[in-house]
Amino acid sequence: MNPSVSVSDITELKHTIDARLKEYCSLRSIAAEHISPRYGLLWQTITTLLMAGGKRFRPYMLISAYRAYSASENIEAIISAALAQELIHQAMLVHDDIIDRDTMRYGIKNVMGQYDDLYTPLISEHNERHHLTESAAILAGDVLLSDAYQLLSEAKVPKKQLTQALAIFSHGVFEVIGGELLDTENAFLADQHISAETIARYKTASYTFVTPLSIGAALAGAPSEDFALLKQFSECIGIAYQFRDDLLGVFGNQLVTGKSTSSDIAEGKATFLIEQFEQLATKEQREVFDGIFHKSTLSEAEYETARTLLIESGAKQSVEATIEVLSQKAQGYIDQLSITDEQKTVFRTLAHHCLYREF
Amino acid sequence: MNPSVSVSDITELKHTIDARLKEYCSLRSIAAEHISPRYGLLWQTITTLLMAGGKRFRPYMLISAYRAYSASENIEAIISAALAQELIHQAMLVHDDIIDRDTMRYGIKNVMGQYDDLYTPLISEHNERHHLTESAAILAGDVLLSDAYQLLSEAKVPKKQLTQALAIFSHGVFEVIGGELLDTENAFLADQHISAETIARYKTASYTFVTPLSIGAALAGAPSEDFALLKQFSECIGIAYQFRDDLLGVFGNQLVTGKSTSSDIAEGKATFLIEQFEQLATKEQREVFDGIFHKSTLSEAEYETARTLLIESGAKQSVEATIEVLSQKAQGYIDQLSITDEQKTVFRTLAHHCLYREF
Repeated sequence: MNPSVSVSDITELKHTIDARLKEYCSLRSIAAEHISPRYGLLWQTITTLLMAGGKRFRPYMLISAYRAYSASENIEAIISAALAQELIHQAMLVHDDIIDRDTMRYGIKNVMGQYDDLYTPLISEHNERHHLTESAAILAGDVLLSDAYQLLSEAKVPKKQLTQALAIFSHGVFEVIGGELLDTENAFLADQHISAETIARYKTASYTFVTPLSIGAALAGAPSEDFALLKQFSECIGIAYQFRDDLLGVFGNQLVTGKSTSSDIAEGKATFLIEQFEQLATKEQREVFDGIFHKSTLSEAEYETARTLLIESGAKQSVEATIEVLSQKAQGYIDQLSITDEQKTVFRTLAHHCLYREF
Repeated sequence: MNPSVSVSDITELKHTIDARLKEYCSLRSIAAEHISPRYGLLWQTITTLLMAGGKRFRPYMLISAYRAYSASENIEAIISAALAQELIHQAMLVHDDIIDRDTMRYGIKNVMGQYDDLYTPLISEHNERHHLTESAAILAGDVLLSDAYQLLSEAKVPKKQLTQALAIFSHGVFEVIGGELLDTENAFLADQHISAETIARYKTASYTFVTPLSIGAALAGAPSEDFALLKQFSECIGIAYQFRDDLLGVFGNQLVTGKSTSSDIAEGKATFLIEQFEQLATKEQREVFDGIFHKSTLSEAEYETARTLLIESGAKQSVEATIEVLSQKAQGYIDQLSITDEQKTVFRTLAHHCLYREF
């Protein structure tokens, strides 16, 4: 088995990425401080957030794909491109949190939350302060998005591979922004409902899976015929990853995921799991569920009833089965790649790691 | 005289840039439509805004610098990089409008304004609708920012020149975001007041002048010793450009500038002109002015009084004199550039065009 795919390597890579991110943030904080201590503060806020959490999954995937197609195990030439994947992710999260009105992330205050603390002694009026904390978060997301491109462009590879990587990257950003818009509008454009699968394809699969894997392959100079397969493979695991996320969001172990298993139900999040419930539930099950779903003040017993209904209706099982189908399809695409069996193991392990995780 | 600097050429270039932008927007709208008609709509909104105004000054400057250092008059290889300057500008404007709570731009509704129309039949509650129009505008700005990098990376130049251009670009974005933060916080961080000159340096001069000119030079493979001079030159004209803007914002011909000459006074905008007034005015002048400045409901006579005070105190003249000093300094830097006199004319004309404009 290729050493690059062992679990210890995922952990080791995370340490490397964490260390590089910290170093990068420190340099950016100094540069920002040079403009003004107030800009330095924005970067300290960003740094706190970046170092508080994140599985570094996207950098890991870029590096995995690069190793699968590269003669070299040495990742120094493309480490900045791996960091770029983490930065674009954080940029999207920062702006997503504004849209979702969240002030927490990774169990700590996010940019808005931290700026609310900073601005509270200065601006007493709540709406005005909220607007200004949003403004700081818009700027934080912007600079992360911009820096992601800069880091990607620092990859030490020939021009053709670099421009291919940049084009894949911007295509991914283009898609995730579309996915984010659809997800946001789904909440009130009931007559133009877009399926959870479509949202997952554009909001998650594209920039979380297709983009890092394709960029990793591009930077290594992978043969052009593999890109369509890589895209199909990574779309399958990306969509399945989101469906797994939806399951964990309701049935996961809160201590492991760090996410509440009540909020998706309380928020009435239109996940694939809920779509399956709507298709499979009896009239009676639906009536009970409708009395619980999307209600903000509910008892733990009511949440438990909702969970039971999602199981008894067969919705949970149906989602599990869909994940299994997507996993099989993904394996089929991996089989067709123009790489050795050993290299294919990288992608097989990756798929397994994504789809059968508990966090 | 080099034909690339005549006034007719500015106009001609604007036509070229307009046509290319339109073509680009059309392709992006199709790609967005492919994801969803709702994403297509976001791109139509962006297109309407992009085509409604903009002097295309940044692309013009990039092209001017490229021509000054390039053996070729042919700009096809770098036209996408020129468009990138317009896109980053529009991205910043879209997010700036959220921060400033503006719903108009170029005399039409901006992204928020257009989305307010779209969402009004769907969401009656004002605050909720406002939040969602802001969300659409955040996403519009994000995709413009991302696409700016993509267009820049499409420049057909050797890798070294391309990565140099990308690094200059991201440095410019890093600075303008800092400038935007300082400008926003200036409104309520009175004890840490940052001067109008510093704001102008980071919010305007950097990404509007230093960035396009330096990128144009980089793409043409300009000698490294010229970059520091180009930066100094373009910072001078960038800061002076902003000071001219402040003058036009109060004394300009509204029919020519398309901007109200009351809003800066009503909003209490802390411009360099106001800083000069505060230094130069008598106690009596200040008392009268304070009764007018930053008051939202004022008569035209009161605005006229404010304008008269800004003249009589000597503030207007002082700003004009500062612009003249900056112009002289800029000329000094141009003189030292390693290019022919004919090529220097490009920059001289540019400086003149920026600093003595009426719009």
